[in-house]
Parts: sequence; structure tokens; C-alpha cells
Amino acid sequence: MDYQSIINEIAEEVFPLLGDGKVANYIPALAGVNPKQFAMTLTLFDGTQYSVGKADTLFSIQSISKVFTFTLALKFYGTDLYKRIGLEPSGNPFNSLVQLEYEKGKPRNPFINAGAINVTDALINHYGNDETAYEEVLEFIRAISDDKTIDSSDVVAISEMEHGFRNLALANLMKSFNNLDNKVEDVVGTYFKHCAIEMNTKMLSRAMLYLSNDGVDPVTGQIYITASQSKRINAVMLTCGHYDASGDFAFNVGLPGKSGVGGGIVAVVPEVMGICVWSPGLNANGNSLAGTKALELFTTKTGLSIF
Amino acid sequence: MDYQSIINEIAEEVFPLLGDGKVANYIPALAGVNPKQFAMTLTLFDGTQYSVGKADTLFSIQSISKVFTFTLALKFYGTDLYKRIGLEPSGNPFNSLVQLEYEKGKPRNPFINAGAINVTDALINHYGNDETAYEEVLEFIRAISDDKTIDSSDVVAISEMEHGFRNLALANLMKSFNNLDNKVEDVVGTYFKHCAIEMNTKMLSRAMLYLSNDGVDPVTGQIYITASQSKRINAVMLTCGHYDASGDFAFNVGLPGKSGVGGGIVAVVPEVMGICVWSPGLNANGNSLAGTKALELFTTKTGLSIF
Amino acid sequence: MDYQSIINEIAEEVFPLLGDGKVANYIPALAGVNPKQFAMTLTLFDGTQYSVGKADTLFSIQSISKVFTFTLALKFYGTDLYKRIGLEPSGNPFNSLVQLEYEKGKPRNPFINAGAINVTDALINHYGNDETAYEEVLEFIRAISDDKTIDSSDVVAISEMEHGFRNLALANLMKSFNNLDNKVEDVVGTYFKHCAIEMNTKMLSRAMLYLSNDGVDPVTGQIYITASQSKRINAVMLTCGHYDASGDFAFNVGLPGKSGVGGGIVAVVPEVMGICVWSPGLNANGNSLAGTKALELFTTKTGLSIF
Amino acid sequence: MDYQSIINEIAEEVFPLLGDGKVANYIPALAGVNPKQFAMTLTLFDGTQYSVGKADTLFSIQSISKVFTFTLALKFYGTDLYKRIGLEPSGNPFNSLVQLEYEKGKPRNPFINAGAINVTDALINHYGNDETAYEEVLEFIRAISDDKTIDSSDVVAISEMEHGFRNLALANLMKSFNNLDNKVEDVVGTYFKHCAIEMNTKMLSRAMLYLSNDGVDPVTGQIYITASQSKRINAVMLTCGHYDASGDFAFNVGLPGKSGVGGGIVAVVPEVMGICVWSPGLNANGNSLAGTKALELFTTKTGLSIF
Repeated sequence: MDYQSIINEIAEEVFPLLGDGKVANYIPALAGVNPKQFAMTLTLFDGTQYSVGKADTLFSIQSISKVFTFTLALKFYGTDLYKRIGLEPSGNPFNSLVQLEYEKGKPRNPFINAGAINVTDALINHYGNDETAYEEVLEFIRAISDDKTIDSSDVVAISEMEHGFRNLALANLMKSFNNLDNKVEDVVGTYFKHCAIEMNTKMLSRAMLYLSNDGVDPVTGQIYITASQSKRINAVMLTCGHYDASGDFAFNVGLPGKSGVGGGIVAVVPEVMGICVWSPGLNANGNSLAGTKALELFTTKTGLSIF
Repeated sequence: MDYQSIINEIAEEVFPLLGDGKVANYIPALAGVNPKQFAMTLTLFDGTQYSVGKADTLFSIQSISKVFTFTLALKFYGTDLYKRIGLEPSGNPFNSLVQLEYEKGKPRNPFINAGAINVTDALINHYGNDETAYEEVLEFIRAISDDKTIDSSDVVAISEMEHGFRNLALANLMKSFNNLDNKVEDVVGTYFKHCAIEMNTKMLSRAMLYLSNDGVDPVTGQIYITASQSKRINAVMLTCGHYDASGDFAFNVGLPGKSGVGGGIVAVVPEVMGICVWSPGLNANGNSLAGTKALELFTTKTGLSIF
Repeated sequence: MDYQSIINEIAEEVFPLLGDGKVANYIPALAGVNPKQFAMTLTLFDGTQYSVGKADTLFSIQSISKVFTFTLALKFYGTDLYKRIGLEPSGNPFNSLVQLEYEKGKPRNPFINAGAINVTDALINHYGNDETAYEEVLEFIRAISDDKTIDSSDVVAISEMEHGFRNLALANLMKSFNNLDNKVEDVVGTYFKHCAIEMNTKMLSRAMLYLSNDGVDPVTGQIYITASQSKRINAVMLTCGHYDASGDFAFNVGLPGKSGVGGGIVAVVPEVMGICVWSPGLNANGNSLAGTKALELFTTKTGLSIF
Repeated sequence: MDYQSIINEIAEEVFPLLGDGKVANYIPALAGVNPKQFAMTLTLFDGTQYSVGKADTLFSIQSISKVFTFTLALKFYGTDLYKRIGLEPSGNPFNSLVQLEYEKGKPRNPFINAGAINVTDALINHYGNDETAYEEVLEFIRAISDDKTIDSSDVVAISEMEHGFRNLALANLMKSFNNLDNKVEDVVGTYFKHCAIEMNTKMLSRAMLYLSNDGVDPVTGQIYITASQSKRINAVMLTCGHYDASGDFAFNVGLPGKSGVGGGIVAVVPEVMGICVWSPGLNANGNSLAGTKALELFTTKTGLSIF
């Protein structure tokens, strides 16, 4: 397929939407981003990349980091991880605290905030302290992206912490149920530092290759996780990757994916490629408006839905 | 692949589990079924079938009927259907009435009871009355199964109605929000008659072919729905097909599927085959215990997961 | 005290509020009532009455009927009644179905709809059938009001039934938990007939005397219930009598009372009098706006709060 | 009335219950208390006290402190306080976080933990800092108890803080809704220091006199709050004073009161006396088992219910 032509077409078709979404504004560091930006990159198994738009512009990966921390926690704990975190979709956002209370402090899945905070807690246990946990996750992201320059934004991380009362509420609630081992501030602080990592669509589409290839980086041959673990992460992305629009994304796009409030969305075409699209304007569910549309157009044009 | 050997192996491996589950006992007509039964059938695109176990024994399809009523409603209404029914996973069972109230009478998706009752209401609107709606759905099921003998059990349907107070509560709640057009008793009665249809694994795996083949029956060439609609039904099965174990099923099996409390589970391998497995003993989430395990073994042995 | 002057003053002071509330409009029979009406009656233990406004105009008593059905159920079942109905305030209206589901079909108290429907079910059990249960409650109300002309409005009762889907949902939900013995339609139908009884403020303030006098009618000497039961009904009125404004009513008025969406509010001054106020315009919580204000003024002017 | 004989009788009648309850065990400092203790004191308007049992033994007042902080906040803010805290009963405990989220961070009433934490925040605003807020509340309690020796237990306060993750969750959730002005740790820390104040039944029954006498200390003549504010605090105690057994307490005891998990219960007989009863064994709702029974017996024997 002529991927470059396809993504060029997509970029044109989503252009009129670029002003429609709303940039995340709960912290100043994100609120200042120009919403009328767009980028999309496809990375094939040989490392070839097709890009359109501002594919070199760094943005805050936010919840996309949950894919990477979940990968490491699943690698180290295997299915034991599911003693502390569930696997099921979480329903509507109203329920975040409700369900956490109803289910006695066990988050529904690793992609809601409570679940990712809990994953971070597990990683701090594994690595011994929060500093190392932060560094090792960053190193892992650099490795799968094949880019040593990737780093976190202190400004964003600190700003998140200053406005992160709901996340502190979730962490304290888990702690009240004895489902969090480390200090609340340390765990949430580490979680926010991972969210504040900055990447572009080239890096992120490259970083998805191991999930497109059964856990093995197809360029370097590096084995990160088992084929079974890789398939399972994809399954969780498909059922839980887009907040309360996960069903909608599966219905309209038909690929495993994960979005972040920075406007990025990563997606996996099993056996074929990694994808990343970025546009900071969000729809009502908190997913990139133009980004979601771009991925819909991509599977429509290529037939590369998994269904 | 030697499908017959594979399913023979699976039947042997799940044999020790046959006594473990619990038969649905909320109505006498289902409670009397012997739990130690098992059957599995694969149907390929040329109509070839591979079966193991009691593949000729009829059982109550129950919630599997939701796939067929959803298909017809999507065919007739297109995405307008989503004005009255959502697409998102519903979270845990405790929430059934909660979410319906919170979301003002709009069910989360067509595979929870409220959603399927609402789909039935839409079909009664389309066909003009409840009798015709019942008959036309039955005819559709006979067509996709290529079997004119299929029928509903009056005993089961009447028994469901006598014990169906929660479903009547859901329907009345939707009606209080003006999201149900016909008489509550008529809609719920029709819904129960569809649930009470009896089929075996041969019929049901055959009936899945149109969803494995982009909406077209690969044996007869009959076009039922568009490719896009077919993919979308599969996406909804993957995210919402197994009550509060949908994430677990996606994680462990990795195929679009739908289960019923009669112990049946249908699944779709896109472009390859339709599957049905049956064993009446249910796990804690209301899905066939041995059936779920059999499908896990199937994708492990064949690698036919969509991820 | 010069009660006549006091209520005359109150009538003047609430006059400017008469257009502010909103008449109940969920059924046509109630929606047509002129909101700018007001009446208030005090009835002393010797039967003396002080009235102001349209004290002879009949209105639909609606939820005030719950006080009378609760009285009879408590009389016949004693504390056994609390096996099927709770005693606790119910929190906000959003929770009506939520709490009923969470607490497995046991209503929080006899003054929410689910509780009153359950009380009606208990009375049908006691009297043997729904017709007799309806008649006996009506006879009781005639007796405590000392007025044989009191009757129910068929138009209102039928209209309630035609729009009563939420109440049917509540009843079906209780039935699904085996906490309702009779047919849903019979129980809800009887409940609506009691709600549709029509009285004026003279009748209703007279009807409160037995609750002001430890269960004994102070005019006739008739013993209806024990002193302990009477006190307890008053306690439930104080904690649960005004939907999600019960705390507010206790805080601002300080008397046991019960409101109905027809705009009536009854209140009890222990050892002193029965009160009824009526004005059809409702506030956001569904209680008579001018009526609530009139009762606040009454306890402020007389110091007759129980606190 | 011969109050001494009455409370002696009560002490005998509740004696067999002393082993039945369960001492609060969420912090070590409370878990070690001997459950088989009992004390009851009545304090009349001239200061006369009638006591039975261990009326000189200090215990942790815990949630009884909420009455005193609410008094001061109502004094300083008047009804403006209700912009940040509601007045309504809160329903069952499951709802604590649910309702706080549903109602956008506004606690239902000042006697649930979220409400009392919010009251503390308001007092810190008023007094300028947390240290002063703590000291002034303590001084107020010493004044109304007429006892300068009263103090807080550091051991209990620190232990509460170490196990207070749920309260930190509530405070963070309020803060995420901009309904908490000061630092979460400062507010919750101050709240816990008030909870850790230690008093005996003599002190606490004395401290209730101002609420029995329209806001004025009947012994010293000191005016603390207005008559209207005093009545309103009593109304909130009646509707919300005993967690999810508030309705039950109103029904069975019929007096405004407030319980704490330390086993104390204070109650008010308007115009007559202050009461405190103590026994550390708690019932399933977290209220003193023998204490609740003692108060039921008290109103039965004396007829001093407000209804």
C-alpha cells in the first residue's frame, strides 16, 4: 500500500476539524498548547517511517505512559499482577471512585488512573524505590523508541502534582484498603513523572512495534515480553484504552490503542506496524478529536481493522 | 490445520472441569439440565464442520440471541440506533440499574439486558407488532443457520416471564425515561421468546459465518449486512460480549464472542470460521466454565487470536 | 396564643411567594391546578380549628397518604414490619433505585415510594385482597378526619397508573428480590388509589390529631395505635418526611411532617395540635414552596419547634 | 423524677450487654480499651449531676467533637456555612465517597467525616491557621464543660493520622472540587486532634447544656450561640447524628444526640438536661451498643422523648 499517500489524504481530511476540540486545561503547562496541530506516523517492521504533519514536535504523552508501565509490571509479575488490578472495562467516568470503593480498592484495569497508580506502586516494589522505578521506565521507553534523548518535563510533572488532588484521593482510597504499599506522595509523584514524558509521533509509533510483533522488537530482535503477554496488552488496549469511549473506538477504529490527554493516540496493527497520531484538541471523552478521526479513516482506507 | 484433532484434544483437556460450574437455576426449565455435557463445533466458509461432544443436543441460546437481534436492528436503523442504545462496556453487574438511571434510561450497549430489550422495542417498531418481530427474528436465525427446524421453547419463555421481574424493572425504568415505545409486557415477552430459542453447536457455529465474512454468508452468498456493520458487531462482541468478564475473555481468548446462561458461547475468527462451544456449568460471571476454557485452548493451540 | 392572627400574618407573608413554585406536571390531572392558591388550618385537641385561605378546597393528598398506610401497617405488624422496610433516611433522589438494588430490594423507609409500595403490599396481605386494602385505608382516613365524604379521584389514580413506570420499576425490582408478595399491578394500583385521595386542610389537620396525642384521637377518645407507635411515626416523619429536604425541614421547621406533590404538608405539634398547609407550587425538592415557608414562620412565631 | 434511681436501674438492665459490642479497632490506641465499661451522667440546668458507673473515666470523644466544631462554624459563618456543607442525612456508609463525588465535593452534612473535615477547614480560615483553630476549639470545649483540664491525646491523634487514608481521600476529593481551602494534611491533622480529645461522661453531659437551653449556658449565663442556631444543631443531631442508624436512634430514643466510635453518646433533652452515656462496645452501625440501649430505656422510663 502507498502509506504516504494514505496519510497525506487523511491529514487533508481532518484539517477542518483541527479547531474543534478542546485542549486539556487542568494544568497551565498543557493549556498553552496550540490546538491546531496535527501529526501522524506509521512505523513498519523494518523501521521505515511514513509521517505527515508535525511529526518532530514533542508533546506530553500523559496516559500513553500507562501502556509502558503496564508492560513492565506484567513482565515482572505475570498474572499475579491481577491480584491487585483488574482487567475489565470501567464504565463511565462518574464511577471512578465509586467502583474503586465498591470493589474494595482494586482498580478495574491498568489504564484508568487508579490502575496505573497501582501499577507504579508495583514497579516501585520491584525496583526498590521510586527514583529507580522512574529511571527504569524511562530507560525502557528510550529503548523501545530507539531514542536516548527522550525525557520528562519537570514543569509538567510538578504542575500535575500541584493539581492532582483527585489522583491523591484515589491513591489514599487504595491505601485505606491496603492495596498500595508505598507512600502515597512517592507513588503519585512517580506516576506523574511518567505522564510528563515528552515524545513525538515518530518516537511513539516506533515504540509500538514490540506490541505489533508479539513482544519482540522487529528491528533489533530484542525480546521484551512473551507473545502471550503482548497479545494480552493489546486486548486490554482494545477494551479499556480510551476512557469511556473504548467501545466507540473499537467500533469505529477496530485497533488496539491508547490515548492521552496531551492529544496523542498510539495504535497497533498486529503483524504490520505501529501507529501514532497527535492533535491536541480533545473530544468530550478526553480523546484527541482529529486523532480519533484520522485512525477511523486509516482503517477504512486500508482495511487494517482487526475485525 | 487438523481442526478435528485440535478440538478432540480440547475436549479431553476440559473434561475434568465439567462438574465445576453451576447450571443457571433462576428458572426451573434451565435448572434441570445435566451440567456434565460438552460440545464444540467449528464451521468453515465452505460449510465443512468439525464437531466434538454432544453437537446435536439442543440448548437454550439465551443471550446469544442478542447478537441476532442487534444485527437486524443495526441493519434497519444504522447508526441511528445509537440514539437509544450506547456502545460502551457496562462495568460490573451491580451497576445495571444504576447506570441505566444515571444515563437517563439509555442502556450502555446492546448486549446487556436493558440494551437487548431496547433493541427488541426497535424491532417491534420496525416490523409493526410484537408477533411479527418475533417471527422475523426466528426466520433470520433459521436462514443464517441454514436450518428450518429451529424453534423457541414455550416452556422456557413462559418460565422466564414468570421470573423476569428484574427485566420488567429495567423496561419500566426505560419507559419512565421515554426510551421504550411499546408496551412493557409485549417487549419483554418478545425478548424472552428470542432468548428461549433452542439450537445446538452445529447450528450456532454455522450462524456465525456471516460475521466472519464481512456480513455475507460465505456458503450461500447471501448479503445480510455491510462489511462495516459486520466489523462493528464483532467489535461490540469483543468489548461487551461476556458480562463483567468481557475484558477477561478478550485477554484470554482474543476473539469476538457472545455467551448465554444456557452455557453456549459463539465466537468469530474473522475470515476463517464460526465457532460454538457449549457446556451448561457456568463460572462466577455467568459464562460457561468449560466453554471459556475450551476457547482459550483453541486460540492458544491455533494462534487464531485477533491480536 | 392568638392562632388566628398568627396564621393570618403567615398568609400575608407567604402571599408574594405564591407564583414562585412549580405545580407537579407529571400527570395532566395535577398539572392543571392553579398554583396561586394557599390554605392553612390548625386543629386543637378539642376540635377547634383555625383556618386561613382556601381551607375547603380539596386537593390530591399524594404522599401524605404514606403516613396513614404506615400507621396501619405498624399497627398490624409492629416491629416485624422492619424485616421488609428500613427506618433510615434515603439520601438523594438519584439513589432511589441504586439503594434499593444495593440493599437487595429492602426500601430505606416507609416514606419513599418503594417503601410505601411495600407497605401497601403488607396491607394487602393483612386484608386479604387489594380491594379491601384500599377500602379499609380509606375508612381509616375518614375516621381520623371525622369526615365520611372523603374519596379518591379515579381520574388521578388512572392517570398515575398510566405514567407510573418508575413506580412499576421499583415494584418489579422489589419483587425480583422476593420482597413483594402480591401482583405488581395490584400493589401499585392500590398505592396510586391511596395517593389519589382528595382532602382539604381542615380534614388533614384534623387527621393529624392522633399523632399529636400518642395514638389516641383527643376528640373522640378512640385509640388507634400505642403511644410508642405514635412517637415512632413522628420520628420517621422528622427524619424522612420530605424527600431529600428532610434535614432542611427539621432544621428550618423543627416539627414532624410529611409533604405530598399535590402541595399539601401535614405537621404535628406533640401534645398541642395538628397542622395542614397547602399551596400547589413546589420547590426544587418537590415540597410546597409557600407551604414550607408558612411552617417555618409558624414555628418561629410560636416557638412550637420540638427542639 | 428520681433520676438517680432511674439511671441505676438502667445500669443494671444494660449490664448483660456489656460484652456484646465490638471495640473500635482501626487504631491500636482505641483497640486496647476494655469493652465491659459503662457510665452515664445527667446534668441539670443548675449544674446538678446524677452519675452511674465509671463517670470519671476519660475516653476518646471522637465524632462527638463534630458537634463542637459545627457549633463554632455555625456561629461564625451562619447559614453561609451551607454553601460548602449540606444539611441532609447521608444514607448508607457505602455512599460516603459516592455522594461526595456525585454532589461535586459538597459533603451531605457536618456530621459525616467529609463534612466535619470541611467544617475544620472553615475554622482554620476563620482563625487564620491550624494551630489556633485547634486551640480555640479546645478552649471552647473546656468552657462549655467548665473544666480546664480537658486535653487531646497525642498518641491517638498521631495514630489516627497514620491510618487515616480514607479521610485523606475524602479531603483530597473535596480539594479537587475546590471545596477545601487549606492544605489537606493540616486540615485532616487538626480534625484528628479534635477527635482525640478525651473527656468523661460528667464533662460531656455538662457540655451539652448550652444545646438544651437555646444556646445559653444555664449555669453561667454565657451566651454561646442564638436560640435559633441551637435548635438547628439539635435538628441536625436528630437527623444525622448516628451514621446510618440515625433514623433508628430517632425512632427508638427520640432525642437529638451524637455518637462517637470511642463509645460515647451525648444527648439533649430540650429545656431539661444534658446527657452522656459511655460504653466502648459498638454495634454494627458503629454506635455504642449498651449506650444506645441505655438511652432507649431512659426515654421509655422518663417519657422525655421530644415526640
